[in-house]
Amino acid sequence: MLSSKFIHAFTRQIYHTNLITSATFNVIKKHNSTHTKNDLVLVDVNDKTGFSIVTLNRPPVNSLNLELLSAFSSVLDDLHKNNSRGMILTSSSSTVFSAGLDINELYKPDMDRVRKFWTSLQDCWIKLYGSSFPTAAAINGHAPAGGCLFAMCCEYRVMLPKYTIGLNETQLGIVAPTWFMATMKNTIPLRQAELALTLGKMFKTDDALKLGLIDEIAENKEDAIHKCEIFLKKYQKIPQTARALTKQSYRKNDIMELENNREADLQLFFLAISDPRVQSSLGKYVAFLKLKSRMKPILEAVKFLKGIFKSKKKKN
Amino acid sequence: MLSSKFIHAFTRQIYHTNLITSATFNVIKKHNSTHTKNDLVLVDVNDKTGFSIVTLNRPPVNSLNLELLSAFSSVLDDLHKNNSRGMILTSSSSTVFSAGLDINELYKPDMDRVRKFWTSLQDCWIKLYGSSFPTAAAINGHAPAGGCLFAMCCEYRVMLPKYTIGLNETQLGIVAPTWFMATMKNTIPLRQAELALTLGKMFKTDDALKLGLIDEIAENKEDAIHKCEIFLKKYQKIPQTARALTKQSYRKNDIMELENNREADLQLFFLAISDPRVQSSLGKYVAFLKLKSRMKPILEAVKFLKGIFKSKKKKN
Amino acid sequence: MLSSKFIHAFTRQIYHTNLITSATFNVIKKHNSTHTKNDLVLVDVNDKTGFSIVTLNRPPVNSLNLELLSAFSSVLDDLHKNNSRGMILTSSSSTVFSAGLDINELYKPDMDRVRKFWTSLQDCWIKLYGSSFPTAAAINGHAPAGGCLFAMCCEYRVMLPKYTIGLNETQLGIVAPTWFMATMKNTIPLRQAELALTLGKMFKTDDALKLGLIDEIAENKEDAIHKCEIFLKKYQKIPQTARALTKQSYRKNDIMELENNREADLQLFFLAISDPRVQSSLGKYVAFLKLKSRMKPILEAVKFLKGIFKSKKKKN
Repeated sequence: MLSSKFIHAFTRQIYHTNLITSATFNVIKKHNSTHTKNDLVLVDVNDKTGFSIVTLNRPPVNSLNLELLSAFSSVLDDLHKNNSRGMILTSSSSTVFSAGLDINELYKPDMDRVRKFWTSLQDCWIKLYGSSFPTAAAINGHAPAGGCLFAMCCEYRVMLPKYTIGLNETQLGIVAPTWFMATMKNTIPLRQAELALTLGKMFKTDDALKLGLIDEIAENKEDAIHKCEIFLKKYQKIPQTARALTKQSYRKNDIMELENNREADLQLFFLAISDPRVQSSLGKYVAFLKLKSRMKPILEAVKFLKGIFKSKKKKN
Repeated sequence: MLSSKFIHAFTRQIYHTNLITSATFNVIKKHNSTHTKNDLVLVDVNDKTGFSIVTLNRPPVNSLNLELLSAFSSVLDDLHKNNSRGMILTSSSSTVFSAGLDINELYKPDMDRVRKFWTSLQDCWIKLYGSSFPTAAAINGHAPAGGCLFAMCCEYRVMLPKYTIGLNETQLGIVAPTWFMATMKNTIPLRQAELALTLGKMFKTDDALKLGLIDEIAENKEDAIHKCEIFLKKYQKIPQTARALTKQSYRKNDIMELENNREADLQLFFLAISDPRVQSSLGKYVAFLKLKSRMKPILEAVKFLKGIFKSKKKKN
Repeated sequence: MLSSKFIHAFTRQIYHTNLITSATFNVIKKHNSTHTKNDLVLVDVNDKTGFSIVTLNRPPVNSLNLELLSAFSSVLDDLHKNNSRGMILTSSSSTVFSAGLDINELYKPDMDRVRKFWTSLQDCWIKLYGSSFPTAAAINGHAPAGGCLFAMCCEYRVMLPKYTIGLNETQLGIVAPTWFMATMKNTIPLRQAELALTLGKMFKTDDALKLGLIDEIAENKEDAIHKCEIFLKKYQKIPQTARALTKQSYRKNDIMELENNREADLQLFFLAISDPRVQSSLGKYVAFLKLKSRMKPILEAVKFLKGIFKSKKKKN
């Protein structure tokens, strides 16, 4: 009916992001990153629903370093190749969804590594925000900065009570890249997005719901995953290719904006972290984290002694 | 005061869409399409208000085929030329506003005709979405896909209870073109638009009101038209040219996006309908419609017999 | 860590609008425009907070003429150079925030002056909408057209009861420029922005709050300024440069759109005001204002006599 030339040309146009391919249905379990021997990102496929629970698993707070991002990027590729029916993104930590970028990647960075690091972050965003499979986030802990970004890339967000979520970059003296901003503009009203971004505001679960930054509140992680499954099931009767192309077409301008400016975006990132003031405050923060880490056994000893003291008191 | 050269150049710039012209005030009644001998689109001008009620009139469900679209396009031209004070778009069916694209245009299409068909749809959208006259829709029945599109092109929407409206393309395995999406983004919040589009969701009248997809609910068609008139009357004291140029300037980027990509958009449409899976499911649907049509007399006979049975029962 | 070449290139890129500079902290008081001997724009710096209260002061209604705009533009430059901690924009009138563009600039304009006039308006918008310092508006009176524009450029709006605000250009037969529209799209939902713009609607304080066109209602001017201060204080713990660059990055596309089309925008303005119909209605309005002004002593005399009559009546 149509010349194959036309079809070929426009297939290329539609599929330009290479996000849709013919795929095999290999079930993957406990995905191992090629960059690490640890299980930085866990994948469990529910054979009944075909949904994959993807768990960020870099204790204690899922800081996004090069290895975690590489593993996540690789998982997203696999889900795409395996023609996943849907992904639920969550965390193995009981208090933090993801703490955002690992500060150690930014402080006194090695230039080769930091380039790979930022490129991996760009990859993850392009693959997650533009994924062919439907996505939902079970936000079972705090989600600042990069944690909020990945949650917002998903098409549905369920969050546990009493945590916080937001792009708080300005509070840290950093400017959120335009693609972080675009992701937020796609989620909440423009007026609120501008205020949230300039204030670097972290929203409590209740406020995030009112704002539309999340869609539902769940009692616990299990409930959150269950609610995500209910959302993903809505797509089961929708033809997959049409759904995927609709999502990708809807988000295309944002994705093209980064695709066409990846090197410039990388240079802006280099510029930002090379600011001596930024390095100085990063240095202080790294020192604080180290101190906190060294203090931990002492603080735990104090806690232990307090416990003994209390129990003795009770006996008396 | 200004050189005529400047004025000429910038008049061209403002008036580039050729939507504003000096016009004569010919009153048109019962517009006859040049493409058909039937009254596919009825036009009634209220001489008092100057408002035109434009009624889609292709029984049973106002499926948008080439002839209906050509007639509608021609009516929109006439309203523009006649410097209409306002248009109210409605349907002659008591249950369907418009069922969207006529599936017979998509199934095993003749290439010449399908090109004219899609081009006519593009024409209608450009002329309606960018019309110089103010527009309102009296949605007196279901409005899926193309029906929803035309309703959203209008500047105000009044809907009767218990019907449904939405861009449900994904449910049919189709991807709504970017200009369909742009029209929805101009109507409801971005976050809701994305969900509505990927889910291909049809909204009931009440939900459509909450979402902002419609502006008011009316008791019946007469009431809906009355409420549309009240809306259009708000513009009576607003200088016409300023109002028209403001609307067109506001919607300009969306319109330019299609104007500059009409052929590519046409090719994407060709590509979509030439997919064997799409043709296969269209084929099944066409067969179902034919069966339903053949079954109609039988079903009516059953209904008739049931009625006799019931009345006999009552007498006993 | 990074080559100075990179940093230099990307500093230029970030700082392209020249809005961020290293600055000295000269406290400015009662800023005098270089174009006038009058205090058209008053600046009071609170030494404790570092916030500047900027008062439009062209009685009776703060009509925006060339001199007022030039003075305002110059004040915005000073605030930027002085690295202001925040600006609160208000009016010295007790009933009008700003009446918008001075009609005398538009009626039978001198071409040299009108070019400077429109260029100054563009300058003010670029400097205010893209300001490095945080901004809030204490809207202590009506704010039509240009008054609404300046209020919307600010990042927060507190308004006194029983006044009105809106871009009412269409009511005057004028088309709001695209950058006026962009500013409104950044403030309220798109659907409402389109209706507000085509209808040229003025919103009462209560309705403006519901719409999101303002953020809070204050009892009086003092309360409004206090509420603006509370807003600005939220930024005190946010690193300045990150906050400024985030705001400018967020608003960058709108600003670039005008920056890249200033001359074309100017020509469109020339075209609009050179329309004989526009000049004719402007002429009538100017005549009406003159008559009103001449009638003022007579009306006041009548009022005075009525007063005497009333007091005599009471004595009886």
